[in-house]
Amino acid sequence: MSFDTLQDLICAKRNPTVVGLDPKPEYVPPHIRAASYDAFGETLQGAADAIWNFNRGLIDACFDLVPAVKPQAAYYERLGSAGLAALEKTIRYAKEKGLFVIADVKRGDIGSTAQAYSDAWIGRTQVGNQACAAFDADCLTVNGYMGSDCIEPFHKTCLELDKCLFLLVKTSNPSSGDLQDLKVGQRTIYQIMGDLAASLGSEAGHYGYSTIGAVVGATYPAELRALRERLKHTFFLVPGYGAQGGTAQDVCGAFDAAGHGAIVNASRSILCAWQKTNHNGEDFQDAARAAVEAMRDDIQKYMP
Amino acid sequence: MSFDTLQDLICAKRNPTVVGLDPKPEYVPPHIRAASYDAFGETLQGAADAIWNFNRGLIDACFDLVPAVKPQAAYYERLGSAGLAALEKTIRYAKEKGLFVIADVKRGDIGSTAQAYSDAWIGRTQVGNQACAAFDADCLTVNGYMGSDCIEPFHKTCLELDKCLFLLVKTSNPSSGDLQDLKVGQRTIYQIMGDLAASLGSEAGHYGYSTIGAVVGATYPAELRALRERLKHTFFLVPGYGAQGGTAQDVCGAFDAAGHGAIVNASRSILCAWQKTNHNGEDFQDAARAAVEAMRDDIQKYMP
Repeated sequence: MSFDTLQDLICAKRNPTVVGLDPKPEYVPPHIRAASYDAFGETLQGAADAIWNFNRGLIDACFDLVPAVKPQAAYYERLGSAGLAALEKTIRYAKEKGLFVIADVKRGDIGSTAQAYSDAWIGRTQVGNQACAAFDADCLTVNGYMGSDCIEPFHKTCLELDKCLFLLVKTSNPSSGDLQDLKVGQRTIYQIMGDLAASLGSEAGHYGYSTIGAVVGATYPAELRALRERLKHTFFLVPGYGAQGGTAQDVCGAFDAAGHGAIVNASRSILCAWQKTNHNGEDFQDAARAAVEAMRDDIQKYMP
Repeated sequence: MSFDTLQDLICAKRNPTVVGLDPKPEYVPPHIRAASYDAFGETLQGAADAIWNFNRGLIDACFDLVPAVKPQAAYYERLGSAGLAALEKTIRYAKEKGLFVIADVKRGDIGSTAQAYSDAWIGRTQVGNQACAAFDADCLTVNGYMGSDCIEPFHKTCLELDKCLFLLVKTSNPSSGDLQDLKVGQRTIYQIMGDLAASLGSEAGHYGYSTIGAVVGATYPAELRALRERLKHTFFLVPGYGAQGGTAQDVCGAFDAAGHGAIVNASRSILCAWQKTNHNGEDFQDAARAAVEAMRDDIQKYMP
């Protein structure tokens, strides 16, 4: 599932947005939580069960509207192995529903360990004579602080299994500039990382994008626009819309002239939409659906 | 379990080394593998069972010799949630045996997500009225590419629960210089990250070390020695000894004048020691123990 597949899905659904599945137990509507805690207690297992049921409901509600989901591993890891089992089920279910799955894991390590992470998230693990799939997402996010030999194992798996990755370039958080904005000669660190994504990426696909994309935050719109100019074959994952403060106008610079080449994430505004309807969460699917439609329409207003 | 606790354990065992638990199925002796595959097949579950039994045997063999173990999350993630369950059991067992556990996860993300990772690896996760522990290691490794607000949630948990963290500074892999050696004004990126570790760290403990340590590879001994001079209150985790090419002479610059302030990791040379004895792995515990003793003695020869 390369960026060509993702762009095909975006075009088919006329929606360049992705639902971030970053669920905390308190984001789950009370009736779902109560059922899981009744079955498993207020335990990690109970919370994992609640989150899996919530995710399934969100996917059922939105799969015809969005091209992709982006589970954030941290919210599953904080529930231990029970949480990771919920993540496995979520990824499998999303793929069954035809969604493109971006595992937001921000992994990065020395070559042999990067290979192990690549096996885990987009590849296969050899067990005796069997090649087993662990999480088997379509795409993952990678942190390149450790240099090119930490990115290459992921890229190799992408080429072998027709998958893709996003390298962290200019992130959406307030302190992203601490390191990323520093200047080395004529270039900032984030420009250097962007150029690395461009140089390591494969030949461009049908829409003109290579297998290595970039994470570029909506909260830095000028940098986003300039990076779009600079990295013509690099697909962008754009976090920071909504709760973090990025607007539709801020994200529009992420797209190319054809309106391709980027996908915008929102998490909390969709997961927690039910908290604003005064219906105690029984309507979480309708609320999420309405939030997804509102986000899509908001962004489409400013698209090239 | 702050760095004071770790240094106490190092002094008590006269051994500044840590066993990296980075097991692949093929590192597990054949008799253990066969028993697990008989029970669960050549599946992720089978491999996870084999790895848990292997880890328990390694811990039983070495817990009186070493102060700490360092499981590398990638090798468990590539076995899916079954692998993460094996990691949970491994961490719990190591702690029961009095070992200090460093979760080598190299996490880093925006503030709210860094908080979730912190909950997962060293903290607590709130589920209803219960504060639940997920992986509950004593210490973790953190990637600071995203800046200070991505490090602070981890540090906050460290202060609350008396834990500690290692920030990636100068890593041991061949391409670590791609980004880390670039110069911004008078300082390299890795010096900037080292200085960030020093400035964000808490007041120094009994041995003079703060709650934020640094990962500095044995494969760059000149940089290691200079960083020891520069970062007087920063505890070092030193990977790269053994299979990656670092020698005992290379690592000795990591210690302070009292021989404190650093711990050196070895993984494959200990996990796979049985492969060199021609006993088909039945002697994996004796072989691991001998390898741990050889490493300790090798490093002690050059210690200040």
